[in-house]
Amino acid sequence: MATANFADRLLAAIDQRQTPLILGLDPVYEKLPTAITSRPGMNDSTRAADCVSAMVEFCRQIIAVAATHVPAVKINSAYFERYQWMGWQAYGRLVQEARTAGLLVIGDVKRADIGHTAEQYAAATLADSDFSDLGHLGGPDAITINPYFGLDGIKPFTDTARKMGKGVFILLRTSNPSAGEIQEIPAADKRPLYQHVADLIDSWGQGLMGACGFSSVGAVVGATTRDSLIHLRRALPHTLFLIPGIGAQGGNLQDCAHVFDRAGHGAVISASRSIIFAYQDKKYAHFSDQQWSQAVLQSILDTRSEIAAALGESSP
Amino acid sequence: MATANFADRLLAAIDQRQTPLILGLDPVYEKLPTAITSRPGMNDSTRAADCVSAMVEFCRQIIAVAATHVPAVKINSAYFERYQWMGWQAYGRLVQEARTAGLLVIGDVKRADIGHTAEQYAAATLADSDFSDLGHLGGPDAITINPYFGLDGIKPFTDTARKMGKGVFILLRTSNPSAGEIQEIPAADKRPLYQHVADLIDSWGQGLMGACGFSSVGAVVGATTRDSLIHLRRALPHTLFLIPGIGAQGGNLQDCAHVFDRAGHGAVISASRSIIFAYQDKKYAHFSDQQWSQAVLQSILDTRSEIAAALGESSP
Repeated sequence: MATANFADRLLAAIDQRQTPLILGLDPVYEKLPTAITSRPGMNDSTRAADCVSAMVEFCRQIIAVAATHVPAVKINSAYFERYQWMGWQAYGRLVQEARTAGLLVIGDVKRADIGHTAEQYAAATLADSDFSDLGHLGGPDAITINPYFGLDGIKPFTDTARKMGKGVFILLRTSNPSAGEIQEIPAADKRPLYQHVADLIDSWGQGLMGACGFSSVGAVVGATTRDSLIHLRRALPHTLFLIPGIGAQGGNLQDCAHVFDRAGHGAVISASRSIIFAYQDKKYAHFSDQQWSQAVLQSILDTRSEIAAALGESSP
Repeated sequence: MATANFADRLLAAIDQRQTPLILGLDPVYEKLPTAITSRPGMNDSTRAADCVSAMVEFCRQIIAVAATHVPAVKINSAYFERYQWMGWQAYGRLVQEARTAGLLVIGDVKRADIGHTAEQYAAATLADSDFSDLGHLGGPDAITINPYFGLDGIKPFTDTARKMGKGVFILLRTSNPSAGEIQEIPAADKRPLYQHVADLIDSWGQGLMGACGFSSVGAVVGATTRDSLIHLRRALPHTLFLIPGIGAQGGNLQDCAHVFDRAGHGAVISASRSIIFAYQDKKYAHFSDQQWSQAVLQSILDTRSEIAAALGESSP
């Protein structure tokens, strides 16, 4: 059982793979390659078992090609929860598979509650669990959580993280069009709300600092504007950012460069649909349907290069 | 399939049961009566299957005694998710049981995300689902959701609610000690953040108005202070409040009276631990362990009376 600080483990994995790119697994049955969805036991979209088996097989093959090229995967639980308990079972299985393949795992579960209920969520979604009938289930190395409750909604998760060498990424500034409706409400001191949330995240992370100088309490920060990224980096010098949606959501890599230090540390950049569905991209049309996982691998390598180029160009 | 407006259905159930009290189901294996946890198949706390079977049996008996006395149950998914996929399976089963018993069901899942991911969560936690192998699973009548993403995080849920005659309760002002860290940050116009969230909830609810004059987009509002409740009722004349934590969290019933109109409409008041674990309360010590469900029933009746008295005393 890993008990080393999560931030230290994540940065070590980034150094080893030489990229801050992490791979988002948001599988959608209808978009899977026919090489998978034509197989018996995976070809009936009216059966949850078929959908889930196909999604697991798809993610398993992606994990196999990705394992030596990225430090971590981010598995989005919503795409599994869609298939009720069968989906949750598959999600748990994939967390194990990714860990076994040597990847760190971020469970993108966005949970939030207070007190005893938050403790239950921490046990459900972050802690390792041991039941004699379910066996040992290693939870993910970190999860995403929502800050709306304040510290009471954070502490049960950070307590679990501290105990088990795990981490959390707290939603801070998201890049969806309406995010500003709440996150950018100007406070009395003229600063937008999210900058106040940033102050809280900085203080919440103090107790989980790694030897690397970063905390195991990270923040989800969309690549919205160059200025907001620069500002948040200054405000949060010890916080690792999880920057989602490069590719599909169209964030700007050059802007992201400002949150990294000279060692290439400071954030993970997540790409999901642009990579896992690369075989549907005309850029990779030369791969046949059977070669879909090679298209995924090529897309991982290409995205790594784009990130390396952007970070290199903009290095301070 | 119910397609009538959720707010209309909820108020009809409140009128029929003559109380706004709803019952929160937050079962914890360790606190269940030995009459249940001594049974074979329910007595081994190291087995998820035993824990979950005991929790289902416990909730089933509570649903049976509560069904004619309260309009709805609020089932907290965290307490089930704790037991991984087995817990999720049990949660789904209890949603069905409560609906079959004639109760409305609020799934207390506090989900939040954006776009396609939020659509997956809406399908997972609010919509009815039909898979040929899992059968028809009627989702809850409403769920709780988190507003931090703004409209993008709300619309996939309200779209599902509109289509299926269901509802959502959006976290607005919670009553935990640290809630104010974010929810009460003063905005530039001097109003605390939660009042801005209230404005958004009012606008988001416009499209789901019932014949009753209330919207199917409700708000979770803790019984914090008399003034905040009065203010929120004025700001949100068409919003049903879900007021949690009466009893265990110690909200003041007299204060809650201010959010109800003369017809007794305006909110549901949820009590969880104070009722479901009533047999551990010395007030009900005269019930034997075998009679635990009678203690629960007595606590429901007592809580109904307390609410009726508080609303009667404070009626405008």
